[in-house]
Amino acid sequence: MAVTWPEGARSAGVACGIKPGGERDLGLLVLDRPSSWAGTFTRNAAAAAPVHWSRSRLGTPARALVVNSGNANACTGSSGAAAAREEADAVARHLSCHREEVLVASTGPIGVRLPVRDIVMALPTAVNALEADVGPFSESILTTDTRTKVARVPCSSASVVGVAKGAAMLAPNMATMLAFLVTDAAVDPATLQKVADSAVDASFNRISVDACESTNDSVFIFATGTAGDADVDALGAATTDVCRDLATKMVEDAEGASKLVRIRVEGSRDDRVASALGRGIASSVLWRAAVFGNDPNWGRVLAALGAVDRTLDLATVSVAIGDAVVFDKGEPVVDLAAARRNMEGPEVVVVCDVGGGPGAAEVLTADLTPDYVSLNAIGTT
Amino acid sequence: MAVTWPEGARSAGVACGIKPGGERDLGLLVLDRPSSWAGTFTRNAAAAAPVHWSRSRLGTPARALVVNSGNANACTGSSGAAAAREEADAVARHLSCHREEVLVASTGPIGVRLPVRDIVMALPTAVNALEADVGPFSESILTTDTRTKVARVPCSSASVVGVAKGAAMLAPNMATMLAFLVTDAAVDPATLQKVADSAVDASFNRISVDACESTNDSVFIFATGTAGDADVDALGAATTDVCRDLATKMVEDAEGASKLVRIRVEGSRDDRVASALGRGIASSVLWRAAVFGNDPNWGRVLAALGAVDRTLDLATVSVAIGDAVVFDKGEPVVDLAAARRNMEGPEVVVVCDVGGGPGAAEVLTADLTPDYVSLNAIGTT
Repeated sequence: MAVTWPEGARSAGVACGIKPGGERDLGLLVLDRPSSWAGTFTRNAAAAAPVHWSRSRLGTPARALVVNSGNANACTGSSGAAAAREEADAVARHLSCHREEVLVASTGPIGVRLPVRDIVMALPTAVNALEADVGPFSESILTTDTRTKVARVPCSSASVVGVAKGAAMLAPNMATMLAFLVTDAAVDPATLQKVADSAVDASFNRISVDACESTNDSVFIFATGTAGDADVDALGAATTDVCRDLATKMVEDAEGASKLVRIRVEGSRDDRVASALGRGIASSVLWRAAVFGNDPNWGRVLAALGAVDRTLDLATVSVAIGDAVVFDKGEPVVDLAAARRNMEGPEVVVVCDVGGGPGAAEVLTADLTPDYVSLNAIGTT
Repeated sequence: MAVTWPEGARSAGVACGIKPGGERDLGLLVLDRPSSWAGTFTRNAAAAAPVHWSRSRLGTPARALVVNSGNANACTGSSGAAAAREEADAVARHLSCHREEVLVASTGPIGVRLPVRDIVMALPTAVNALEADVGPFSESILTTDTRTKVARVPCSSASVVGVAKGAAMLAPNMATMLAFLVTDAAVDPATLQKVADSAVDASFNRISVDACESTNDSVFIFATGTAGDADVDALGAATTDVCRDLATKMVEDAEGASKLVRIRVEGSRDDRVASALGRGIASSVLWRAAVFGNDPNWGRVLAALGAVDRTLDLATVSVAIGDAVVFDKGEPVVDLAAARRNMEGPEVVVVCDVGGGPGAAEVLTADLTPDYVSLNAIGTT
């Protein structure tokens, strides 16, 4: 069933020739009127040129966003900055708006000059193809993803629709996770930024595959306002649901992955510490390799916890794999057969209770497989 | 050529039955007289029982150290602590000393109860086998290591001899890097601790394979004093040389590795920041996978730098692979052929100049291979 953007937004996805196989690699998202928007961007100091461009536009209304896949336009020096500006310029000419109203995003290999002329030449086709259906746009942003990632959550009389691609921590060769959300609720930019920050913190910031932070990570949310004033709490909940759905889809489609790993940390001082502990486990290549082998090596989970919180008291810690407790308040539980069985499916759940505190968090990762290494070893430059 | 311990130290390595294949798995190091010693230990909150035991003995003279491989005695709860004490007790009875003079170390899988009776039963054989040759001892501590790791550096009339095993960040399944050094220089414990801290910081703390911090990492240095008072500067230099030699041997013998990666960071604010940047690159599984494929994906190096230092200005950064510059003060260098050639040997050198500062550091790592994943995926519990 085709998902469509909320009223006031249209998109297109075409092939401009960056990807050698002729797949769609240029996306255009157009808002009928200048719209509120908010964004969160990578904190990496090697942030790509399009990140610098779009971040500098925060706080002013947007009319359009242009995105390409197959090239990150990252670490491309002065020519990269010029290319991002040129893209915005070209889109602005087609829409008769200011280039400052056009946002830019890119995803693909780092350090290759962006063939901006190919993008400019393909823009008329993209403009002619604009439609409410999110399909072609959601295809145009993919890199090593094997499928499109789309989510829609209603929110009283409005709705929130999101489209994303994996990568980022999942496949930083391709150098990006990107997500684009549109709501038809009316909401001012400052409120929308709070909604975005909170949703991103509870979703994309709680996934990690290889703990590598990309140069291009960007999340955009646009509010067209056609459905009238937002119930901010409902909008926040719907936005968080959309982001969580997209984040889960990213991990499920992580490079080389065979399993989703759901890490729940409970009983921590606060949610922030719980999230850091969960990310520590999600960053352990040893634990992730054990998951690939259905091997309940819980010692690697404890070693990861102990490296994050050096004050942790093992006597207060318990670990379970699925419903099988493997470490109970400082003491190992000898029978691992049940834990091993709980690792055989496509989703593995690890629950760590680290004491009596109120903090909790869930972090998602994928297993580490020989395929992941092979995919990232050869032919990436 | 057999390496022997400095005068005043003897060792043995025997099989006590922990390793199922009957390999040597019990090491005993005995000092003729109570000796100064210093130690540095993992900071992991999930530190193993032998780490707790040995760390608590810092500052008092030592007569012996007992070490087993094939079992980390980590995360083993109250029975683990009792087992470490029982080992010390048994050694003390044989040497007619106090159990507080006996240090303990272990390496192997986490979370398995230590068969301490097997160790106690094999001790008489070990005591009878004590000799100056380091060979059998250096074998007894190995886990997934493929060869022994021994280093010797003369130091005026004295010398420093060290024996180590890899793992730790290299292969934390086996849950440990261990190193044991002996000098015949006479030096008080406080000075020896300073020598040890400085040497470890410049060697073992500058290697990283999978960035996983073990529960059992321990470095011990003993001073028998038979060669008379130490020239502390010369002793410090010799100790650092021994530690660096052993650290390099660990990375060369890292699980599944096919290449040594030498990461040099220059031009940083200070050495500490340079070391953090180098460790950031060494922790990037994406860069390490690219090294396996001889693929000069320097974008992954920049992404790792930018994730560690968020204030980094790319316009001041240059990156070379061997002698081939790939990124020059903010601009990519298009020709990668020379860089690719420089990755084909058994050692890859990455040089990152991050500005005009005085700080520099070298960090060693190994490439990430499908073999590493396979080794750590199956049969580890």
